[in-house]
Amino acid sequence: MTLSEFDIIQQVFKQQKINRQDVIIGIDDDAAVLEIPPGLELAISVDTLIPDVHFPGNMKPSDIGYRSLAVNLSDLAAMGAVPAWATLALTLPESNEAWLRAFASGFFTLADEFDVQLIGGDTTRGPLSITVQVHGFLLKDKRLTRSGARPGDVIGLTGNLGDAAGGLALWESTDKNHALLKQHLARPKPRIDAGKTLLELASSAIDISDGLLADLGHILESSHVGASIMVADLPLSLALCDAVGLDQARDFALTGGDDYELCFTLPADKISVLREIIDFHLIGVIEQQQGLRCQLPDGSSYVAQQSGYQHF
Amino acid sequence: MTLSEFDIIQQVFKQQKINRQDVIIGIDDDAAVLEIPPGLELAISVDTLIPDVHFPGNMKPSDIGYRSLAVNLSDLAAMGAVPAWATLALTLPESNEAWLRAFASGFFTLADEFDVQLIGGDTTRGPLSITVQVHGFLLKDKRLTRSGARPGDVIGLTGNLGDAAGGLALWESTDKNHALLKQHLARPKPRIDAGKTLLELASSAIDISDGLLADLGHILESSHVGASIMVADLPLSLALCDAVGLDQARDFALTGGDDYELCFTLPADKISVLREIIDFHLIGVIEQQQGLRCQLPDGSSYVAQQSGYQHF
Repeated sequence: MTLSEFDIIQQVFKQQKINRQDVIIGIDDDAAVLEIPPGLELAISVDTLIPDVHFPGNMKPSDIGYRSLAVNLSDLAAMGAVPAWATLALTLPESNEAWLRAFASGFFTLADEFDVQLIGGDTTRGPLSITVQVHGFLLKDKRLTRSGARPGDVIGLTGNLGDAAGGLALWESTDKNHALLKQHLARPKPRIDAGKTLLELASSAIDISDGLLADLGHILESSHVGASIMVADLPLSLALCDAVGLDQARDFALTGGDDYELCFTLPADKISVLREIIDFHLIGVIEQQQGLRCQLPDGSSYVAQQSGYQHF
Repeated sequence: MTLSEFDIIQQVFKQQKINRQDVIIGIDDDAAVLEIPPGLELAISVDTLIPDVHFPGNMKPSDIGYRSLAVNLSDLAAMGAVPAWATLALTLPESNEAWLRAFASGFFTLADEFDVQLIGGDTTRGPLSITVQVHGFLLKDKRLTRSGARPGDVIGLTGNLGDAAGGLALWESTDKNHALLKQHLARPKPRIDAGKTLLELASSAIDISDGLLADLGHILESSHVGASIMVADLPLSLALCDAVGLDQARDFALTGGDDYELCFTLPADKISVLREIIDFHLIGVIEQQQGLRCQLPDGSSYVAQQSGYQHF
């Protein structure tokens, strides 16, 4: 069944239950009107998702909805921000009610988990394209950026790498052993809680969207430092190693992207206190010498070239 | 020449000169970080533009850039908000440097006029699609909504209607007499200053994006009132009447859309004070009886059906 643009807004996107006190006007007028609690700053991030670029074209609409919000919340996590509101600009080839309701259910599942209210958007007809913008709060003058890494800091990760790239490579597989990897691609978990903790302890952070080498490279560039990482220490899931073998798993971990774990740098004297609060893996160290050196298990090493996903 | 995603950001979108004090982190990190001056609320609006839906596919890229920001600023104008920041999510089939620079020049021409800083965005490859989100300020508890119209209020317009629809109908014309109409479609003027004035005096407002009947209809619905408008009083440009004739000009004015003038309602005792500040046209009156009645020059009348642009 097809819905009019008006029906899409009324029947699908205005059905969210949560109702934040700081939302004065939501979807009902020319613009949303929001209140920022005193003493807080606003963090804003926007990402577009295109089928067969950012997700397989045959991904379930509920997963597309979940993922569209997740990749954006991940950027707030990387700043240590607390999520508050989202907007959704949705371009669709046709108004398919079942698709829209499934998309919205995945989107709102994650939104409700983090108390994120949908405050506005736009629905237009065209090739499928999803742009989500998220808005979160930071205490004044307190934020986790890419530019604070210092020589001697250790490099940490909040979870395994490579599972999402494995899930993409095995997307058409019907083997049940691959389901977990595919789930990592479909429904990445934004590390909001870890981000809040890292805000207090870490010197820098970024979320892994384009691959470890590319994203750690952004930290090194912003912080004007270099690093060495131990390839043998990359955290890999058993499911990934079983599915693709150790060498491919390590390659996915280095360059695969889409994991949305946080990569962070930490003064060495903070390791033990952080261990008491969150699980993480140490994979290397920040150095004065520019460049990103990968130490291989056989004792050899190479200097990484930026190798994340490039759209152009 | 093609640019990498990194080059697009560095060489095209980070070149804006203005640097607002309230932008703490702009394009450089996982999220922008912004400060909201105390006592202000935030107004947010987002619109997507698709070629051959929202603008002719052969429109100049500089005009597409200008228009993409203009239609969004128009929503802030309709709330009486003062623009502050914008984000740009740009999906492009290819990275064409000349196109990008022209697009950015149109976008920044308008941004600079209203002191709007580009604080973030996303660049992806896919069918051309442009999503802009704008952010503006309102004094606490002071805003211009769609819901304040009261019986007895007059209905006003900030300028002529129908020119943009005429420009669209005559888009392929090379007649110099049609250039002004085409310019109205390409570079609509967001009525920011009029919005600030109306915030003090008007009871409701909306910007005309989908056509007068549809957009005035939104005010009537939100305010739970009806209205009569005088078709003979619709403000029409000489250029439009010359190009398409009076009947077609009136039809464009009623249903054409894309004009981005403000339609507002005003207590009758405020007419003279508003006249001293801005130019406007009176076209009708708010009534208790639901529905939108169009009084024709021959004395007959009809009840308008919603007839703005529907995407689905």
